Amino acid sequence: MKRYSIDISYDGTVYAGWQVQPTDLSVQEVIEKVLLKLTSETIKIHGSGRTDQGVHAKRQVAHFDLEKEWVPRRLYAAINALLPPDIRVLKVRNVRSNFHARSTAKSKEYRYFIWNAQSISPFDRLYKTEISRKLDIKRMRAAAKLLEGKHDFAAFTASSKTTIKSTVRTIFSLEVKAKGNNIIIIAKGSGFLYKMVRSLVGWLIEVGDGSADPEDTTEVLASCKRTSRVPTAKAKGLFLWKVNY
Amino acid sequence: MKRYSIDISYDGTVYAGWQVQPTDLSVQEVIEKVLLKLTSETIKIHGSGRTDQGVHAKRQVAHFDLEKEWVPRRLYAAINALLPPDIRVLKVRNVRSNFHARSTAKSKEYRYFIWNAQSISPFDRLYKTEISRKLDIKRMRAAAKLLEGKHDFAAFTASSKTTIKSTVRTIFSLEVKAKGNNIIIIAKGSGFLYKMVRSLVGWLIEVGDGSADPEDTTEVLASCKRTSRVPTAKAKGLFLWKVNY
Repeated sequence: MKRYSIDISYDGTVYAGWQVQPTDLSVQEVIEKVLLKLTSETIKIHGSGRTDQGVHAKRQVAHFDLEKEWVPRRLYAAINALLPPDIRVLKVRNVRSNFHARSTAKSKEYRYFIWNAQSISPFDRLYKTEISRKLDIKRMRAAAKLLEGKHDFAAFTASSKTTIKSTVRTIFSLEVKAKGNNIIIIAKGSGFLYKMVRSLVGWLIEVGDGSADPEDTTEVLASCKRTSRVPTAKAKGLFLWKVNY
Repeated sequence: MKRYSIDISYDGTVYAGWQVQPTDLSVQEVIEKVLLKLTSETIKIHGSGRTDQGVHAKRQVAHFDLEKEWVPRRLYAAINALLPPDIRVLKVRNVRSNFHARSTAKSKEYRYFIWNAQSISPFDRLYKTEISRKLDIKRMRAAAKLLEGKHDFAAFTASSKTTIKSTVRTIFSLEVKAKGNNIIIIAKGSGFLYKMVRSLVGWLIEVGDGSADPEDTTEVLASCKRTSRVPTAKAKGLFLWKVNY
């Protein structure tokens, strides 16, 4: 048995997310089917984490084991030749047998793209979320500062306490960048809960358009309870950007 | 009667091109249907020129006449509210009654995007053409220089002499820019023949990959005859970029 890691980029528009699920097509399933076709081995691939329906990946990482030994460069070309054009393998590596795409990961970076004006370009329509009401960047930055660090993020996730051990996570940094009508929110952390980035972004948008105040962030965090005060931002603006090992 | 001009951006991926045609859906038809819905007037819009099936527009221009007088800003919002997200109106203007999107146009700019490597990104797959064999930029530039100026471009069009008056056109400039794996070909001219930009690009690719020599350009031009020596580059890499009045 040889273990391989792959870096993958995908346009999540038409997929039911990363993870295999019973009805709709997932990115994981597409890649597993390609590996089955290539190797005649039934292979389960392990991603660094899920991405939800409609979320994109600039660079997702996954690992899997193969009976047969492959030259990474050849495996790369063979997989890409069979994948649809909205999923691309960027890199194949031989990794040690204890490498695990999820548990070995040290940190992750997500980026969320907002077009803060009317009439989003046809070429951005699938990759940025249009927010036509003007957002106040300073207010968003003040709220983002309060979210950085180690907190119980129960108020910012769709996970329930009953299904996961802990909702405590550490956000290394939560930046809000602005350029013209574009706003980019960059979240770096050790790991993120289910729908956590989209919830953080949803809250920053509430603060940015004046529906909530930056200082409210502390109270919402402390409540440790998800309520309708925190909306979930749309999937299409979100990219899993990088996984660090 | 009041005349209006509209600047339009569209992702041409799913359309049969700009111009209305009997079977498949065109961009023009989509906009005309929106105008009919808005104004209850059956309106014919006149584009600055056609774009073929799968070709995109960063900024196309069209004009049309309406019985009713509209504030341009309102017409802009009303049209965009009814258009699909892959077509956007960028600007609506009141224009004088002798303005004509095609015949008043002074010059046009097209841009062609090439990803000159393997494994094009999923996010570029619909907007750049992948050419995996390495292209020599210097050779392409030498050929491009020979195409600039006033020539009979019969060898670089799919138009036939029997259907149009003249195949003589003037190319103001034909630039080849390179950055990393990206090549951008920028064509500016008074007007272009049917499939002319894609034919010029097809030829530059032939020269760039060594299938033809830059000096051959003069001979091909002089032949005034379209042959299989000049391939037509794929539609998806081409953008109508700007129309100048």
